[in-house]
Formats: sequence, structure tokens, C-alpha cells
Amino acid sequence: MFDPKDLQNMLGSVQEQLKEMDAKAKEKVIESKSGGGLINVQFNGAGELLDIEIDDELLQDKQSLQILLISAINEGYKQMQEARQDDVFEQIKNMNPFKF
Amino acid sequence: MFDPKDLQNMLGSVQEQLKEMDAKAKEKVIESKSGGGLINVQFNGAGELLDIEIDDELLQDKQSLQILLISAINEGYKQMQEARQDDVFEQIKNMNPFKF
Repeated sequence: MFDPKDLQNMLGSVQEQLKEMDAKAKEKVIESKSGGGLINVQFNGAGELLDIEIDDELLQDKQSLQILLISAINEGYKQMQEARQDDVFEQIKNMNPFKF
Repeated sequence: MFDPKDLQNMLGSVQEQLKEMDAKAKEKVIESKSGGGLINVQFNGAGELLDIEIDDELLQDKQSLQILLISAINEGYKQMQEARQDDVFEQIKNMNPFKF
């Protein structure tokens, strides 16, 4: 028989483990470049932008600067999301709330 | 009596509605500024950076440029996440999978 308390316990345990995952994500660093390294950005695994490095050359060309920034940031953000999804799947695989 | 199929149907319906929410999020535009408007950034609600506008003044001061970029982007990203969370809660409130 199904006990609603099982579902409640499961959701509580999932929440706990997601919190733990978030703390670990903040320690991860994800790097992304554009323009052959003229722009370098760093995210942590929780999606916070930690650093942007701009090559002096780009200060002469605002159009390229803006385009390359958008490109590096979106690429880094995508990588961060993928890493995060992998972590979620890994976590789900390991949590097995129903103890099958 | 609890029927496991109910849980399966519920999860399917949740997945469907999350997909729909994602499509809607892409149409939303979130703006963020820093340095009193020297930097302007635009995200869509799905976390994609759409545009960065840099005031010419900042091209003379790379240090400030980098700091103000990080600040505007993280602020916009935070706003985007908050909007997203509100959408999730709204969606959960409306979905009522158990038909109470």
C-alpha cells in the first residue's frame, strides 16, 4: 500500500540533496572564451559570473567587444547549465528515494 | 488507494507544462543596468543574454568596464531567476495534478 508519508519523505530528501548540490556547484569554475581568447569569462557552477577579462585590443572596437562578450557569456552559461543538468541526473541516479 | 499510474501521469503533465513555461520565458525580456546606465544588458527569461550596451566613456577605463559588466550581468541573471521561480510557483499553483 502507498503511504502518502513516503512521498513527503521523498520530497524532503530531494530538497535536502538539491541544496547540497547547490553548495558544491558554487565551488566549480567554468571558463569560456571568444574571439580566440580576446574575451575570457569565468562562471561558478551556480551561474554567478565571477570574472571577465577583456583584451586591450578590443577597447578600440566597441561593436566587436559587445558581440564577443555576448558570445562568451552565453557559451559559458550554456556549459554551466549542462554541467548542472549532469549533476542533477547523477544525484537522481544516486538518491533512489524508494529504496528499490 | 494510490495508483502508481497517477504519479506517472502527474510527472508527464508537469514535464509538459515546464516545456510550455520555457517557451513563454524566451519571449520575456529582462533589463539590467550598472554604473548609472553606463552598462545596459538584456536577458530573455530563459537566461540567454540578448544584448550588451557599453557607454563609450567606459572604453577609457577597462577596470571599471569589467566590474560594471559583471555587476549588470549578475543582477540581470538574478532577476531572471526570480522571475522564473515566480513562474514555477504560479504554474504549480495552477496545475493541481491531483485534482483536489
